[in-house]
Amino acid sequence: MIKLYFAPMTRSVRILWLLEEMGVPYELERVDFLPPAKNFFAQQTPLGKLPTIEDGDVVMCESGAIVEYILERYDDGRFAPPVGSPERAAFLQWLHFAESTAFPPLGIVVWLTLYRDDADQHQTIVDEARARASMSFAFLEREIGEKTYLLGDDFSAADIMFGFTLGAARMLGILDDRYPKTSAYLARLEERPAFQKATSAK
Amino acid sequence: MIKLYFAPMTRSVRILWLLEEMGVPYELERVDFLPPAKNFFAQQTPLGKLPTIEDGDVVMCESGAIVEYILERYDDGRFAPPVGSPERAAFLQWLHFAESTAFPPLGIVVWLTLYRDDADQHQTIVDEARARASMSFAFLEREIGEKTYLLGDDFSAADIMFGFTLGAARMLGILDDRYPKTSAYLARLEERPAFQKATSAK
Repeated sequence: MIKLYFAPMTRSVRILWLLEEMGVPYELERVDFLPPAKNFFAQQTPLGKLPTIEDGDVVMCESGAIVEYILERYDDGRFAPPVGSPERAAFLQWLHFAESTAFPPLGIVVWLTLYRDDADQHQTIVDEARARASMSFAFLEREIGEKTYLLGDDFSAADIMFGFTLGAARMLGILDDRYPKTSAYLARLEERPAFQKATSAK
Repeated sequence: MIKLYFAPMTRSVRILWLLEEMGVPYELERVDFLPPAKNFFAQQTPLGKLPTIEDGDVVMCESGAIVEYILERYDDGRFAPPVGSPERAAFLQWLHFAESTAFPPLGIVVWLTLYRDDADQHQTIVDEARARASMSFAFLEREIGEKTYLLGDDFSAADIMFGFTLGAARMLGILDDRYPKTSAYLARLEERPAFQKATSAK
């Protein structure tokens, strides 16, 4: 059975959300999140990072990689378009984009305003970080258009990757009513029972 | 044929390197890299980002996603372990880690010291960003151990993802002789003809 090292409000929410959507059995190993002031690898997990999973002999970190691993091993085709299908490129793009492009500027805002106590001395940096963070949501606002989910009508694990990013952006006041289609998309994600279970887990 | 929108010293190097390793035919569309001062999506490509590829009806961005797409469509098994194999989890982990964990702190250093002209007013921020950037290389230094490549004896596309990150880290003076095994690993990657061709393309 998959053991998921978990702390609320961290990227481990993505993995719990996916497991709940799929109905895959799991065991939660709750750990306290330690702000990464000195060391990104100081979490109480086998690799020092959150999330980490164990699954038999497999021990791995990186939320995007764990999502792909779980899909490859346990999905019956409900949460990712098959290799070679027309939707596959968009699936891969959004799965990576959610963390590699959309998240890093949010991480900068968190670092400067929550983990440091001297944000007032670096206001121009904070302002530019917030502006940088908003760029990805302007892009998504155009791309999501009238679609229900990132790939169209069908929910996929790419929505899980991006849903966590959007929740963080809203909490930081960066995703707001400048982006009505993106905000409505996030609201659709929040209606899902698996989302609610994953984000309310303590 | 794949059309790759390319500029030197950008993540598009990863894609060119992969195409060269695989021997897949491609067409290069050279564009000038525009520093993302105001807009991350202002590059002269169909999606405003670098890299972007076109392949028939497919238009996509995100270097990690493009690498996965090209492997799924064109690789005969030489550059990624098959789904379900023992090395698959590590492959996915490192492919994502290279961009999602190892690169963002380097991006902060680039932003503060190359794209802004007031780094001297924010020295404590720059110093902490450099310290954060080095954490991933301390982790890699332990994990690479005596291995030739990330997965052991066999080169894979995960090495391409990480090789670009390591090159950037060395250019910024963050990957240095504190990390001898990681530095030796980068030197092995640099010996590959496909690396040399990709990094010398103008």
